[in-house]
Amino acid sequence: MGVGSPSVVAVTSTVYVIGIGSGDPDHLTLAAVSALQKVDVVFVIDKGEAKEDLVALRTEILHRHRTPGSYRVVEAADPVRDRTAERYTEAVVDWQDRRGALYAEMVAGLAPGETGAFLVWGDPALYDGTLRLLEGLADPEIEVVSIPGISSVQALAAAHRLILNRVGRPVLITTGRRIAGGLPADVDDVVVMLDGGTAFADLPDADVADVDVYWGAYVGSADEILVAGPVLQVREEIRRVRAEARARKGWIMDTYLLRRHPAER
Amino acid sequence: MGVGSPSVVAVTSTVYVIGIGSGDPDHLTLAAVSALQKVDVVFVIDKGEAKEDLVALRTEILHRHRTPGSYRVVEAADPVRDRTAERYTEAVVDWQDRRGALYAEMVAGLAPGETGAFLVWGDPALYDGTLRLLEGLADPEIEVVSIPGISSVQALAAAHRLILNRVGRPVLITTGRRIAGGLPADVDDVVVMLDGGTAFADLPDADVADVDVYWGAYVGSADEILVAGPVLQVREEIRRVRAEARARKGWIMDTYLLRRHPAER
Ligand SMILES: C[S@@+](CC[C@H](N)C(=O)[O-])C[C@H]1O[C@@H](n2cnc3c(N)ncnc32)[C@H](O)[C@@H]1O
Ligand SMILES: C[S@@+](CC[C@H](N)C(=O)[O-])C[C@H]1O[C@@H](n2cnc3c(N)ncnc32)[C@H](O)[C@@H]1O
Repeated sequence: MGVGSPSVVAVTSTVYVIGIGSGDPDHLTLAAVSALQKVDVVFVIDKGEAKEDLVALRTEILHRHRTPGSYRVVEAADPVRDRTAERYTEAVVDWQDRRGALYAEMVAGLAPGETGAFLVWGDPALYDGTLRLLEGLADPEIEVVSIPGISSVQALAAAHRLILNRVGRPVLITTGRRIAGGLPADVDDVVVMLDGGTAFADLPDADVADVDVYWGAYVGSADEILVAGPVLQVREEIRRVRAEARARKGWIMDTYLLRRHPAER
Repeated sequence: MGVGSPSVVAVTSTVYVIGIGSGDPDHLTLAAVSALQKVDVVFVIDKGEAKEDLVALRTEILHRHRTPGSYRVVEAADPVRDRTAERYTEAVVDWQDRRGALYAEMVAGLAPGETGAFLVWGDPALYDGTLRLLEGLADPEIEVVSIPGISSVQALAAAHRLILNRVGRPVLITTGRRIAGGLPADVDDVVVMLDGGTAFADLPDADVADVDVYWGAYVGSADEILVAGPVLQVREEIRRVRAEARARKGWIMDTYLLRRHPAER
């Protein structure tokens, strides 16, 4: 082909899903920083929650690593989920479809060769739906890249100087709703996330008589609160501290490890 | 107190346990970089394994973030474990005691106010013994600080663009030895580490008929190898690729997610 003759190049756009850590701007990895620095567009989904601190972290990270005006911000509101719908499953499916369509539409706004990013809390691989919502992108010219970030589980462990597993033994990561039905019998180290309350504190005494809890709220941030000890001894303190913190800030994010004795067996 | 009169100050030394990620020097967090930059002494435990790449990563990270000669390196050989001892438990306990004593001795070499660091693979909270070995330090003037790092589990997830959990569902992190006895019945997403072979490939067909595997070796590094698919379809390929890679490099580190269908339920 002669100089100047047109050539067809497959121009690929990249969408980064960047884990930004769990509250400390220094949780960011060097890989996340370089991805951020390549970005033309930052996609922001407004979930309409009163979590100003999350917005503040995102803003601080962008200010630290980018010159204002050197990138665009595209904001959209998360579709509202119809919780009054008669058929629950249909409503959820419809809501996920609308979210998928919204993400596809945002990403479609990238010019060929441009790079966009979703900044997600913690690690994109743990209880976050961004990668799932981007999976359905029809456009093969858009490449999705996941950049791992420090999850709240890791931030919790570091704050308590914990190793999550015991020698040769497993760790379960689960939700508050699931442990409300009882602790698993066959795993002695259980990390609980997404607990709307303090599910562990409501378990029968006999189930938690030999269990220690390592609890943390706003872990990694300036507001970090940590409490640890035998469940029977500290559960009331955690209930109280949690309720106070939640009332004071208007929202709470907490995670905890439940560790059954003996320490080694 | 007048100017110049002596005052007693509690001088504390700090020992950082720094997670350096799982093979990619850009996995390092900004917090890890600043900790590294404060360090007077880097403690290195020579485990006598033929894992030159691990040593190479540590060296590269230090070269990138520190001026040579601006810090000391204190090396020690990991105590040899007596695998011939008649009483297994006693031998293990004795070995752990000797390791604890070694760590205490290394750390005791810090001058008051100095800062030391152990650089650990992945995240210090996952299948790593450094924090446990430092727990026993008798000296209250030595503060141990854990700095989280990107674990191989997260590197695996990112490489396959996976979310580890499904909506509202748990994830189990366990070892090859444990799944050799069978997959857990109540968890459908299982991450397997520390598998000396391919334990999943030896499970009975009926147990894995509805299971997908997302496998990765040397994840995050230039040698990364990924294979994914239904266990029954890809297990022979993984066996072969793993054996070849291991023979070629002399060592292998691999991790995988086993995901039972249906995708959502
Ligand atoms: C939707 S999930 C997102 C998890 C995130 N992707 C991660 O890797 O940590 C939100 C849950 O994460 C936990 N969480 C997130 N940030 C936290 C923090 N700073 N301190 C304690 N828990 C936190 C809480 O259990 C919360 O319910
Ligand atoms: C002693 S554990 C250390 C785990 C480390 N602390 C972490 O956070 O990943 C070693 C195991 O980690 C996994 N692993 C570590 N690095 C890996 C890598 N780059 N790719 C795949 N698996 C890896 C393997 O399962 C290996 O058997």
